[in-house]
Amino acid sequence: MIVDNALYRDGERVDLGCEPGDLTAVRGSVSEPHDFTWVGLFDPTSEELARVAELYGLHELAVEDALSAHQRPKVERYGDSLFIVLKTLWYVDEQDAVETGEISLFVGPGFIVSVRHGDGASLTDARHRLEASSQVLVHGPSAVVYAVCDDVVDRYEEVANSLQEDVDEVEESVFSDGRTNDSARIYVLKRELAEMRRAVLPLREPMNRFAAGTVGGVHRDAGPYFRDVADHLARVADTIDTLDSLLSTAFDAHIAQISIQQNDDMRRISAAVGLVAAPTLVAGVYGMNFDHMPELHWMFGYPWALGLMLLSSLTVFVISKRSGWL
Amino acid sequence: MIVDNALYRDGERVDLGCEPGDLTAVRGSVSEPHDFTWVGLFDPTSEELARVAELYGLHELAVEDALSAHQRPKVERYGDSLFIVLKTLWYVDEQDAVETGEISLFVGPGFIVSVRHGDGASLTDARHRLEASSQVLVHGPSAVVYAVCDDVVDRYEEVANSLQEDVDEVEESVFSDGRTNDSARIYVLKRELAEMRRAVLPLREPMNRFAAGTVGGVHRDAGPYFRDVADHLARVADTIDTLDSLLSTAFDAHIAQISIQQNDDMRRISAAVGLVAAPTLVAGVYGMNFDHMPELHWMFGYPWALGLMLLSSLTVFVISKRSGWL
Amino acid sequence: MIVDNALYRDGERVDLGCEPGDLTAVRGSVSEPHDFTWVGLFDPTSEELARVAELYGLHELAVEDALSAHQRPKVERYGDSLFIVLKTLWYVDEQDAVETGEISLFVGPGFIVSVRHGDGASLTDARHRLEASSQVLVHGPSAVVYAVCDDVVDRYEEVANSLQEDVDEVEESVFSDGRTNDSARIYVLKRELAEMRRAVLPLREPMNRFAAGTVGGVHRDAGPYFRDVADHLARVADTIDTLDSLLSTAFDAHIAQISIQQNDDMRRISAAVGLVAAPTLVAGVYGMNFDHMPELHWMFGYPWALGLMLLSSLTVFVISKRSGWL
Amino acid sequence: MIVDNALYRDGERVDLGCEPGDLTAVRGSVSEPHDFTWVGLFDPTSEELARVAELYGLHELAVEDALSAHQRPKVERYGDSLFIVLKTLWYVDEQDAVETGEISLFVGPGFIVSVRHGDGASLTDARHRLEASSQVLVHGPSAVVYAVCDDVVDRYEEVANSLQEDVDEVEESVFSDGRTNDSARIYVLKRELAEMRRAVLPLREPMNRFAAGTVGGVHRDAGPYFRDVADHLARVADTIDTLDSLLSTAFDAHIAQISIQQNDDMRRISAAVGLVAAPTLVAGVYGMNFDHMPELHWMFGYPWALGLMLLSSLTVFVISKRSGWL
Amino acid sequence: MIVDNALYRDGERVDLGCEPGDLTAVRGSVSEPHDFTWVGLFDPTSEELARVAELYGLHELAVEDALSAHQRPKVERYGDSLFIVLKTLWYVDEQDAVETGEISLFVGPGFIVSVRHGDGASLTDARHRLEASSQVLVHGPSAVVYAVCDDVVDRYEEVANSLQEDVDEVEESVFSDGRTNDSARIYVLKRELAEMRRAVLPLREPMNRFAAGTVGGVHRDAGPYFRDVADHLARVADTIDTLDSLLSTAFDAHIAQISIQQNDDMRRISAAVGLVAAPTLVAGVYGMNFDHMPELHWMFGYPWALGLMLLSSLTVFVISKRSGWL
Repeated sequence: MIVDNALYRDGERVDLGCEPGDLTAVRGSVSEPHDFTWVGLFDPTSEELARVAELYGLHELAVEDALSAHQRPKVERYGDSLFIVLKTLWYVDEQDAVETGEISLFVGPGFIVSVRHGDGASLTDARHRLEASSQVLVHGPSAVVYAVCDDVVDRYEEVANSLQEDVDEVEESVFSDGRTNDSARIYVLKRELAEMRRAVLPLREPMNRFAAGTVGGVHRDAGPYFRDVADHLARVADTIDTLDSLLSTAFDAHIAQISIQQNDDMRRISAAVGLVAAPTLVAGVYGMNFDHMPELHWMFGYPWALGLMLLSSLTVFVISKRSGWL
Repeated sequence: MIVDNALYRDGERVDLGCEPGDLTAVRGSVSEPHDFTWVGLFDPTSEELARVAELYGLHELAVEDALSAHQRPKVERYGDSLFIVLKTLWYVDEQDAVETGEISLFVGPGFIVSVRHGDGASLTDARHRLEASSQVLVHGPSAVVYAVCDDVVDRYEEVANSLQEDVDEVEESVFSDGRTNDSARIYVLKRELAEMRRAVLPLREPMNRFAAGTVGGVHRDAGPYFRDVADHLARVADTIDTLDSLLSTAFDAHIAQISIQQNDDMRRISAAVGLVAAPTLVAGVYGMNFDHMPELHWMFGYPWALGLMLLSSLTVFVISKRSGWL
Repeated sequence: MIVDNALYRDGERVDLGCEPGDLTAVRGSVSEPHDFTWVGLFDPTSEELARVAELYGLHELAVEDALSAHQRPKVERYGDSLFIVLKTLWYVDEQDAVETGEISLFVGPGFIVSVRHGDGASLTDARHRLEASSQVLVHGPSAVVYAVCDDVVDRYEEVANSLQEDVDEVEESVFSDGRTNDSARIYVLKRELAEMRRAVLPLREPMNRFAAGTVGGVHRDAGPYFRDVADHLARVADTIDTLDSLLSTAFDAHIAQISIQQNDDMRRISAAVGLVAAPTLVAGVYGMNFDHMPELHWMFGYPWALGLMLLSSLTVFVISKRSGWL
Repeated sequence: MIVDNALYRDGERVDLGCEPGDLTAVRGSVSEPHDFTWVGLFDPTSEELARVAELYGLHELAVEDALSAHQRPKVERYGDSLFIVLKTLWYVDEQDAVETGEISLFVGPGFIVSVRHGDGASLTDARHRLEASSQVLVHGPSAVVYAVCDDVVDRYEEVANSLQEDVDEVEESVFSDGRTNDSARIYVLKRELAEMRRAVLPLREPMNRFAAGTVGGVHRDAGPYFRDVADHLARVADTIDTLDSLLSTAFDAHIAQISIQQNDDMRRISAAVGLVAAPTLVAGVYGMNFDHMPELHWMFGYPWALGLMLLSSLTVFVISKRSGWL
Repeated sequence: MIVDNALYRDGERVDLGCEPGDLTAVRGSVSEPHDFTWVGLFDPTSEELARVAELYGLHELAVEDALSAHQRPKVERYGDSLFIVLKTLWYVDEQDAVETGEISLFVGPGFIVSVRHGDGASLTDARHRLEASSQVLVHGPSAVVYAVCDDVVDRYEEVANSLQEDVDEVEESVFSDGRTNDSARIYVLKRELAEMRRAVLPLREPMNRFAAGTVGGVHRDAGPYFRDVADHLARVADTIDTLDSLLSTAFDAHIAQISIQQNDDMRRISAAVGLVAAPTLVAGVYGMNFDHMPELHWMFGYPWALGLMLLSSLTVFVISKRSGWL
């Protein structure tokens, strides 16, 4: 689907009075040196993408990559144009899950083509923000690349914060007094951190190259801005590493807690067994059939026996309590 | 076995009207500058390989490597020709196992010799696909190298997907409620991932060099295509790393599950013991032989005792239920 | 809040007779080549920082970073000025916790602007010490940067020492005879070490560059002093790594101790069960109703039975003692 | 002990008609440009080695290293000669152990001195093979270095294969149904793999340098041959890493198996306790002394009670069977 | 304390006839180009060190480092002199502990100042050995640096050997049949290995630079000697790594042994319980009060019952034995 398609001149969107789908018209309106067009596609069919590819001369391998949504983040050069793939991430609260989408950018002289897959990563906001500040947009396609990267990485931070909260919850649960089974949740969180790492890590190197201003097609003056993006990425990567290693430690602690609880249970059970076994022995004694057992003939023999039973139970109870077994 | 042996000119297979086994005839038909021959061998005897080696001037060390199927993936230069070893992988569903084969390629000016070991990696399809698109084949031996590498790496991805499914099954089994013993399966999967890693990792560096176009004998224009192969390899390597680390976490979770189940069993057993021990004590009491035990002479003494027993059992049962021990 | 704002000339603070808040007056008093001003801000509002930024021409991205306190330590160049971010750490004894703050430094020709967040990292002492030794201060902004870095890193060492003590305590607790649950404490210490690592590690590379004297804006002669700071950082990093790995080992030992204690308990419980089960069997025997059981008619049959019971208990006790089960 | 000492000319051993021990005579017979001598020593005394060292001008530090057999594998340059240390490995089947020896080579213009320690690494075979193929030997000392390295590394592969078999056995034992204690064996295998790694890894870098032909004193044309050795080394190193990580996983699986067996035992024990406890309760009931217990006076009261006991045991048995506890 | 202070000329100690404490006199006696002085200090007061520092022009930061004994091993350049810090290690048998000391060396043109902290690292022997071999000493301060480094690293090897023996003992204890608690000892050994690693690892890089002869102030000809030291360091580092990883494996094996012992105990306990429970059931049966229980009236009913008890116990015993539970 062609979401939007516009010509930008001097940092302003030019109203061409034609449909976004009229690719040739928009492309043909480029007339001044710094004019550029931005074609925005969402889950395009291969036909739609082929039309755009032909019009803008996109490389077949890049187009193939942009069509399916299972690429690694990367920045590749094809002749004088760049092909950028970003993974988008968002956190779905109801499922405690991190969802992924993908944005591919084709950046060439006088044009940018964005291809988006997956729900949670609309570029409409980024486009509107850019159109609202013409002093940024005037820098051409580089400005769009920055805006998109910044937007994507900002969402990484939101996702990292949500996962941070999840880890805090797990931590609390592990060290709570109750019997909890946190291993499944820890497993899921580790899997999502791994997924996030796959989105974040490969992006660091190209962002640093953008920051250093050594990538043709990205404006040198944009360096500090991409350095800012790279810095955010580094922070996100730090958070991922920290959370992952905290989860590992939490998992070990979880195992330790289970062992300690098992110990506690075992001792508590033993004390309970003792509470019953002691009076049972007393009962056994007075169930013996000796001819000469004076207690059996006492007037208060029976209460005496019951007293002995109670006393033996009490003794076990007190000893257990004192040694912390109950 | 000599599987196929053909002369290619201007991207087309030339019908020479001679047997594939007639090595000299095919070799001798090379007459124009961009002509090249492709000899395809499958599990060749040392004699067969020696004949080919002599005709095409292959280096003895490379020939020795190509004869046995236990090499590491590598790309080596011998004078003006290249020697490439690739591991082929395929997944055998019935055994949940990853099988490995090997393809060796000798690439020199005007010829390519492929030596294949192992069932699951036929090059016939790759050859047919190439012969069907003469605009690719026209690039000479580089095109064949690309076609073979692409084919091999595509199968890596298939195997990775099969292993991904296996890991998903293990995950489900580990976190299911039943008593499962998943350690053997996790072990086998880890072993297969290690085997896969040995096939995949050593290939990344030469593919990147092919992509950079810095390897003599491989066409510079083929760069983006090999970059595509390198990209697939990187994805496969990512998947392997992720699966391996997920399996480690799943294994730890498996241990935790076993511990938790043991705890649960222990508590359930204890509750059951209590259910019997309490009425046994009651029976013991009324088995005592005191002269003065009023209950013994009650009309309903016996039902009273049975009631007491039931009551004590019920008490234990209720307490166990409430505290989650049953 | 503007904490201080002064002009330094020839290593001495110049008394301008104006308020610290009068930014323009102080800035305007710079007249000689080596004059420089030092503006110190604490938790500034965005308005305060914006005024300073405008006056000193600070880059908007750096200003944005300095405003919030969630940056990674870093050193960035903007034109001819440096932007330095340091994390400050201090140990709060009552909570056994490591708290973090942040100091941002803008260093340009003829000025330094320090922005501090968080309680525990006052720069006032550092400023006073500097003002007291004019032979250091005469080196200009580099001297201030060194003084601040030195101060911050010295506190890292204090925090590392406090954590070292905590680890010693944990170690003692793990290997004590008592039943301890140290996993929560080990977890918390590992989390704080991770936090500390995040503050310390990213600083090493820029400090080494300062030490090498290759960073414009930092005086080459200050090299050995920054090498000293880098050395302290390396020591702190070593300590962190060592403590972290000791904690991992201590944790494993903790698990082993729990297992051993469980073994001990299990054997002790079994011995106790034996102490009761043996006499119970004896009582059972003499509770049998056979017509011909000679002991039942003995004069001292009852004491004999009690003796047997005691003896059986004693036997179990002695065996248990000898085999170390009690 | 001087094992052998010969002069080689044009790829042939020259029969000088003197004792191997006559060092000076052999050395003095060198007369043509490509002549070279090969002195072979086995566990030499310091006097023997000193004589050789003086005659061939070997460096004192290298001689000291060659005397004792506790060096790391290394290649060092002393002036225009090379000093090479290799660890030899062999597998002793009876003890399942990897034994280590050492070969030191002094390679200079016109001579090679080999010093061997330890039983399992005879150089005699290598010498005979070399003397049998004069087209190799004609390349001078480089050919000897290659022959020795090739021989040593081939044995690494044999040892790796033996360890592979051991690991396969451990694997089978761990996942067998029996109660096995495999931790000691896994420990020993890991220790031997570590020893092997110490022999193999330091050799890779010098072999790669030999392969690249950048080491003076080793013939450039020998490059592909040393690349072959380096390739074998890489394969051995791969195998070591894989085996080591498989052993770690097998060990974890071993722990899991023990836990699962403990669970199984516990449940089986509990079922057995229930089989006895239930009829004991029945016996307790009919051991009560109530005046009015109709069953006591039934004609078939006793069989009725025994039947009840059997029934209760059977009930426990069936329940246990059904829930998989027996 | 000034331990020694001497002038060396042409490899010989010059008898100046003045006290070691007379720093100025010794310093002033330097008259020929290759003369040099060696001042040896042990735990100096800051005043002593200040006097030496002033006389020899030592840098204040280096002096500060030399005063306290908590530095990392390092080699730093201050102008035309070197500052070297080495950690000394020695093993105290009575406590199974590794103790650490420190040696700082100031090496400049015509002088060397050594500062020693801690008992176990006397330099007197090294000085005497050097003075005894004037052909070494003639090389000036470089010879002293080599002698000291060689001495220090030789002691590392001794300590490594002692720790190796400790690890062997632990290994034996872990795999012995007895119930051992080795976790504390493993912990302590790991802590000492970590301490040792901190002393050894940072020294490797400067020793390699000394070996390469690229450090001004250290004689190029001393290269092979420092390479020897570097080689020893590499061996020590290898040993540390191997021991550390063996200890980790031994620890895991220890945990496995504990689990297996717990299993064994549990089964043994269960068998013992069965030995008592079976006859108790028999006793219960004959304690029942049925009117018609023929055995009760048998002449040998009582021995019959005792026999049954014995038989039931024996049955349990035999079954337990056969299934390996006892």
